[in-house]
Amino acid sequence: MISLDFSNLTKIKAAHGLTTKALQATPAQIGRHLKKISNRKQGFYTVIDDAAKVKKINAFADSVAGKYTDIVILGIGGSALGAICLKQSLKHLFENELKDLSPAPRLHILDNIDPALISDFEDLVDSTKTLFIVITKSGTTPETLAQYSYYSHKIYQKKLYPRDHFVFITELKNNPLRQIAREENITCFSIPENVGGRFSVMTAVGLLPAKLIGIDIEKLLLGAREMRDRFLSTDITLNLPYQLALAQYQLAKKGKKINVLMPYSQKLIRFADWYRQLLAESIGKQGIGITPVNALGVTDQHSQSQLYNEGPNDKLLMFINVENLGPCMPIPTMIKKPANFFPEGLTFNRLMHTEMEGTITALTKNNRPNITINVPEVDEFFLGQLLMLFMGATAFLGEFFKINAYNQPGVELSKVITKELLQKY
Amino acid sequence: MISLDFSNLTKIKAAHGLTTKALQATPAQIGRHLKKISNRKQGFYTVIDDAAKVKKINAFADSVAGKYTDIVILGIGGSALGAICLKQSLKHLFENELKDLSPAPRLHILDNIDPALISDFEDLVDSTKTLFIVITKSGTTPETLAQYSYYSHKIYQKKLYPRDHFVFITELKNNPLRQIAREENITCFSIPENVGGRFSVMTAVGLLPAKLIGIDIEKLLLGAREMRDRFLSTDITLNLPYQLALAQYQLAKKGKKINVLMPYSQKLIRFADWYRQLLAESIGKQGIGITPVNALGVTDQHSQSQLYNEGPNDKLLMFINVENLGPCMPIPTMIKKPANFFPEGLTFNRLMHTEMEGTITALTKNNRPNITINVPEVDEFFLGQLLMLFMGATAFLGEFFKINAYNQPGVELSKVITKELLQKY
Repeated sequence: MISLDFSNLTKIKAAHGLTTKALQATPAQIGRHLKKISNRKQGFYTVIDDAAKVKKINAFADSVAGKYTDIVILGIGGSALGAICLKQSLKHLFENELKDLSPAPRLHILDNIDPALISDFEDLVDSTKTLFIVITKSGTTPETLAQYSYYSHKIYQKKLYPRDHFVFITELKNNPLRQIAREENITCFSIPENVGGRFSVMTAVGLLPAKLIGIDIEKLLLGAREMRDRFLSTDITLNLPYQLALAQYQLAKKGKKINVLMPYSQKLIRFADWYRQLLAESIGKQGIGITPVNALGVTDQHSQSQLYNEGPNDKLLMFINVENLGPCMPIPTMIKKPANFFPEGLTFNRLMHTEMEGTITALTKNNRPNITINVPEVDEFFLGQLLMLFMGATAFLGEFFKINAYNQPGVELSKVITKELLQKY
Repeated sequence: MISLDFSNLTKIKAAHGLTTKALQATPAQIGRHLKKISNRKQGFYTVIDDAAKVKKINAFADSVAGKYTDIVILGIGGSALGAICLKQSLKHLFENELKDLSPAPRLHILDNIDPALISDFEDLVDSTKTLFIVITKSGTTPETLAQYSYYSHKIYQKKLYPRDHFVFITELKNNPLRQIAREENITCFSIPENVGGRFSVMTAVGLLPAKLIGIDIEKLLLGAREMRDRFLSTDITLNLPYQLALAQYQLAKKGKKINVLMPYSQKLIRFADWYRQLLAESIGKQGIGITPVNALGVTDQHSQSQLYNEGPNDKLLMFINVENLGPCMPIPTMIKKPANFFPEGLTFNRLMHTEMEGTITALTKNNRPNITINVPEVDEFFLGQLLMLFMGATAFLGEFFKINAYNQPGVELSKVITKELLQKY
């Protein structure tokens, strides 16, 4: 089970830390917040029980097994970040460079419209052997429809059947993408009305591509359900999402309005990207907000630690400690001098953990608030827990700040202006 | 030539913006700051004149041409971020996935010690056909020496000559890496004493790997020199680094202590990472500091824009607008309804620029301070300008804040603790 370590908050100067008491809550308090969340009628914590959806995904995956060398997601923001995170966390780190590593197709996520990207991507993928997953909840995202239009022309030009090369993921109600699906007889998976893009990793948005590249989605959902049950508990000792949100909220009130998420795990580098959207879009409104910063241990010790230790004390540092980092990799003793630079028998695993401990201890000595999320290992089960931990915490944060964590009114204006500019053109 | 557009700062409420006057400086003022910088005796703006170094790099590259399929950098922080940026900006975006794309070797940068990374990397590269570039200025960076030890054992086990598979980049004075180089007869390139890691992209640290993968380093230096000449000018209209630093500084004084760097270019995504270290480590000390945040257009419109528009008004948004995004990529009209979703003749290029304009206009309407750096295109010449623009601006920022931008005292404590922990082990 994932565990949270808040102990360093109590070890630093009171102005920057929190007492153990500040991290307590009664069942009545938690219950009131859960009631508010329940009133929002959001589906991110119930959608994980949808067995019929999993069945449909599995059936589709079986029906296309061995058919494609490549899977390409056309999607952006919440339609891309979940899949990016799942792939990075659960597959070989050089999956796409190693074409023949596994029988599973390679997954590519095209989450930009830069012509340089689209053009270079032409060299990489043979569209006759590719399945394009087009993901836009509203069915109107211009970037995604532009990409769809581009690749659908390619499929037509090659006289291939669109339904053999496209699958859509969109809301249930009628929209431009649904319309195309009907006319072209393209398979559609749906995103429930009450699950927003940034909360959609446990819907087909995340699960379909994951399944197609061989990720165990049942195990992912199992982990998520375990954390969901804790999210719904009124016992503070069980409710890890509540604990996490409370620490973030109390420290934000003390001026720690930047949250750094720094996993010590190469596999979790994109988890931090996924969370960046979740926190930024959910809580950043009405002048309120916490600015998420993503970092990676040990790498960013050599790029960000200076600022975290001696810059403005305006951050909460959230570390993810992965207990089992994978294969045991010994660091051999150096052949030539300097001999014994490292203690005999040291491993990369141990060095990684020791550097994390050194970093965290130094920050604590410098009165920098920090917490550690301990994860036994990065597999489907614990990643499911981790994703639900942060979604649940974000839901509580919204209630603490008294804001609606599920809309994004602040992006409308730029959309309207862009549309006007395009019409003028 | 790169140009800076500060006009939106004058269009927003005075509390959040700057007047044209606030961005002025007299030759005497600029001269005083240049004098202070000169007194620091730093080499980042003079090292670009070192023709002998370029000659040595070119000669080495000639001598190993065709010998390796892969180049691997063992380095972290400032020893890695420059090369990562150069590769992403100037090479094919899927270079490493396309083994046979070009005769140049593939470049990999191993900037972490996660055993999962080291282990998976084993599957990717055949060390008998690989050149490892070991980069650590002090010659003592534990992560890098651990990696070196690991790969040097592989080379020994295969009964290959170390000097055929390693090249070192380190300071001139004696240190553990120099010692190994002497004993193993390994080629060394030097990092000048007065150039710190985060300022070292124009030394062998950035230039050697760049040259080996076919980047035109003379053109890069040419662009850098053009910007350096402006950096040394006391005419504010010419001195773009001074202009940029002044805007950052004045806005930091108004509470905009987060700087978001958001290039609208997939090629520049790692440029923002490179700058993140430069700004964080140079300015983040003595309780002072600006927290850098990296973002990418248009992608992060769908993950961060909500926060930037409606969250706390505590940020300066810095956009990079690339005028020529590369090949013209038309968006074909949709075959099926919804017809005319996009105006006839629209290109990905135009859509990208229009979305940037929409984003910037909305932020301005929401009184969010923002500036735009216009770059004609992403090639060696303009990238050289861009790198020097930000290094020069950081040098001025240090003087404005009255701090030494070239040390990193705040990382020492964690290093000491880590060492102690390792010794106990």
